[in-house]
Amino acid sequence: MELHFILKVSFRASSDVTPASDMIGKYLEEANRTILVKGAAEGQGAQVVKWNVNDNKIELLIESGRYVRAHDALMRLRKPLAAKLGKEFRIGLRGIEVESFIITMPAEKPLKALKIPYVNSIEYENGTIKLYLDVGESEIENRVPDRILTLMEDKIQQQSYGGKAEHWQLLWQSEKREHKFSEDPTQAMLKAGWLKRGASRGQWIHGPQSTQMFRTFERIVLEELLEPLGYREMIFPKLIPWEVWQKSGHAKAVYPEIYYVCPPKTRDPEYWEEVSDYYKVTHEIPTALIKEKIGEPIGGMCYAQCPPFWIFLQGETIPTDEFPIKVFDRSGTSHRYESGGIHGMERVDEFHRIEIVWLGTKEQVLDCASELHEKYMYIFNDILELEWRKAWVTPWFMAQEGMTGVSAQSGAGTTDYEAFLPYRGEKGEWLEFQNVSVNGTKYPAGFNVKCQSGEELWSGCSGVGLERWSSAFFAQKGLDPANWPEGFTKRVGKLLKGIRFL
Amino acid sequence: MELHFILKVSFRASSDVTPASDMIGKYLEEANRTILVKGAAEGQGAQVVKWNVNDNKIELLIESGRYVRAHDALMRLRKPLAAKLGKEFRIGLRGIEVESFIITMPAEKPLKALKIPYVNSIEYENGTIKLYLDVGESEIENRVPDRILTLMEDKIQQQSYGGKAEHWQLLWQSEKREHKFSEDPTQAMLKAGWLKRGASRGQWIHGPQSTQMFRTFERIVLEELLEPLGYREMIFPKLIPWEVWQKSGHAKAVYPEIYYVCPPKTRDPEYWEEVSDYYKVTHEIPTALIKEKIGEPIGGMCYAQCPPFWIFLQGETIPTDEFPIKVFDRSGTSHRYESGGIHGMERVDEFHRIEIVWLGTKEQVLDCASELHEKYMYIFNDILELEWRKAWVTPWFMAQEGMTGVSAQSGAGTTDYEAFLPYRGEKGEWLEFQNVSVNGTKYPAGFNVKCQSGEELWSGCSGVGLERWSSAFFAQKGLDPANWPEGFTKRVGKLLKGIRFL
Repeated sequence: MELHFILKVSFRASSDVTPASDMIGKYLEEANRTILVKGAAEGQGAQVVKWNVNDNKIELLIESGRYVRAHDALMRLRKPLAAKLGKEFRIGLRGIEVESFIITMPAEKPLKALKIPYVNSIEYENGTIKLYLDVGESEIENRVPDRILTLMEDKIQQQSYGGKAEHWQLLWQSEKREHKFSEDPTQAMLKAGWLKRGASRGQWIHGPQSTQMFRTFERIVLEELLEPLGYREMIFPKLIPWEVWQKSGHAKAVYPEIYYVCPPKTRDPEYWEEVSDYYKVTHEIPTALIKEKIGEPIGGMCYAQCPPFWIFLQGETIPTDEFPIKVFDRSGTSHRYESGGIHGMERVDEFHRIEIVWLGTKEQVLDCASELHEKYMYIFNDILELEWRKAWVTPWFMAQEGMTGVSAQSGAGTTDYEAFLPYRGEKGEWLEFQNVSVNGTKYPAGFNVKCQSGEELWSGCSGVGLERWSSAFFAQKGLDPANWPEGFTKRVGKLLKGIRFL
Repeated sequence: MELHFILKVSFRASSDVTPASDMIGKYLEEANRTILVKGAAEGQGAQVVKWNVNDNKIELLIESGRYVRAHDALMRLRKPLAAKLGKEFRIGLRGIEVESFIITMPAEKPLKALKIPYVNSIEYENGTIKLYLDVGESEIENRVPDRILTLMEDKIQQQSYGGKAEHWQLLWQSEKREHKFSEDPTQAMLKAGWLKRGASRGQWIHGPQSTQMFRTFERIVLEELLEPLGYREMIFPKLIPWEVWQKSGHAKAVYPEIYYVCPPKTRDPEYWEEVSDYYKVTHEIPTALIKEKIGEPIGGMCYAQCPPFWIFLQGETIPTDEFPIKVFDRSGTSHRYESGGIHGMERVDEFHRIEIVWLGTKEQVLDCASELHEKYMYIFNDILELEWRKAWVTPWFMAQEGMTGVSAQSGAGTTDYEAFLPYRGEKGEWLEFQNVSVNGTKYPAGFNVKCQSGEELWSGCSGVGLERWSSAFFAQKGLDPANWPEGFTKRVGKLLKGIRFL
């Protein structure tokens, strides 16, 4: 069974259309041979299979396959018909009334119960799903039926191949190294007083020693990579409103992992007095009352770091010789609601990352990615002396929209950098500590950024997660500076003392 | 009319107390002369003015003034009476039943309608307020009546003196300087392409030029102040759960200005599928539905920067020779829901600050504050060449708890640094761009941090707001490097180019 559309619909006219009946019949018959099959393969177009005039209504039954979908057919019919009715009969077309719209599509098995906007019900029988749509004129004009169709096809595909399509392909692997350390580095740092758990979930407070290590990693990235490659520092915002995630695509699937942000409904202290008074008397926070007194979420805390940068470029046309544009941000924290349980620094809800972003033509963007790969190779092999590997994986920007597989744009995609963790053993999972992504046209298109020359713009990004670098490095090298590689030791300088406790 | 308490209450005993009636009468009579007036001035203690035994109940009417409050009197009576009843009559005291508890307090005028926990009603007549409390045994044990009293006295005082008590006292003022610039610096930076508005309220995206200035200010603070004074960098968390604000005192009054953070109720993708599907079909975010699907607020985004640091020290006893402990954090953003309207960079919802914290004995903490004042003086006079002044103001930590006036601990308090803004004119408001606060015992006490020697611990903090420094400096010096002081120019180095647009 192929995709099939059945649309029962009327055009509403300004007066009785009976006098135009013949003209309408001829027009529809011709349309069935021309505009309703144009661009579609044999037998794949739309057809008006029944029609009738009834006072001021032209009732149609349109059926179609995937190409020239029934609702598109309706749109193709409208304008020429309106012109004929106006010219020949001085009758206007006033609107569209949908009586029923049923889409039938193949599926191996029924889907679980779903609430989809504009879908009245979903039925399953004999390898097909029937969608009963509840759409009107404006939904048809806004292509809502197409979005519903795409959504359903994704769900059917996910149900059949779900989870299987996560892509992973080894690109490069370093030599094996001998490791003198085999403990969980977070536990070792805790014992050594380098850090402590923060008061919130998956959160750490870094003492002077741990912070010194983060700043050393940062300096390596600045001096060995960002400065030589001509990256300029910027400050990206850290509270992300929906608008940004709508344009970046995150609004499609990021919900389970967001820390949502809600503003107070008002700044009026009297409005909040009840909450303050409750706290002062009971010494407990009235969280349910506060939830009533705050507004709906305006977005969330920074999740992926680069999307808010694009607001800087949004809607702009940029001189061709500005490209490639290379910037980075290290001005604040990222936050993800991670899965429960106790984890170390390698899986945190609050983390610190240098986010590197570049854009230009496809060629420039691919070149920038190569430059970065080269510098990272030097840093991980010659300065940090890590045991690590690179793999081509489901792109960052697809994974975060809930997609699997690889990108459709050739050359676009994500390279993950993974490190061996001795404490997990030879067969243990390696740690993703870094990535380089070429995101194709996704961001420039989403934020409407143009190049003066008219050439297509691509972009890329690379996230340096300081918690991840720390987890990888100290898992392999341990906390004793005697076992650290020379290139790192000399950049750390004099080791800071921590705060001692009794 | 003085403060007055009338408490009608019973002790519930394990059996009929009639046989103990004589003993009880004598005990209460004696108590009226001893434990109920102990520590109170003549006529200021509590008195049992009526009593009665009724089966297994000892009914009391206790009246009092401010000292030995009626509910304290009840607590003083309980233990010895229980001992006597047990020893002489083998009767146990099982609990307390409050019939009514009325507090009368003077007030110039009635208060507005209030919802206070454990208060049934509030009446006003002839210069007095009557509170009808609804408390039981555990509230009395937890001193709820005292908290209600404090709260009401604060409200009455605020109503009488509200707003008047904001403290401001000039400490020092620089020489007047000639300013070659008189524009609003944010507007000038916008025009020059140094920054752009972010997508959220009161939020900016800083381009390479503006970021370079922030980093220059940061370097000045690092090289001229933090390093010479021996401050160690740490990383403080940026999502602040209630626990932190309960201990820091912010939970008393910070509600109108917080960006609240709510986690998803679950990370299960199926739970969020409805939201994703809604977005994919309509391209609109279902914010009301999301609000239903997120949990109650767990806290907020970073507001004041130092409170979460204290979790690192919480409950610890620290060796005496560790003090003074000097640390700082510059790892992320702070967020405040500011009053509406369009503002420049001087009043933002999202900002960047170096937070400096120190703790030790009172003497050490005051010395550290002096050192900082000296370094700031050098930076503002000799490097940035600003026109500025210092004032002694209502302490930071009191203002943020909704209090006015000055601290009760002598030596504790906040010094604000204010800069003249030429574009606002000679009579315009100066900009607070910096503060130094000595917070007394507040934080060590709130987070239970102890010194090995047993000496009382104090702490201080100082916030370097980079947006504020920028606003002050560029308001006086403008954007043309020719007009910048030598000390600043040489530290900026080569000026970065911004991103050009057509």
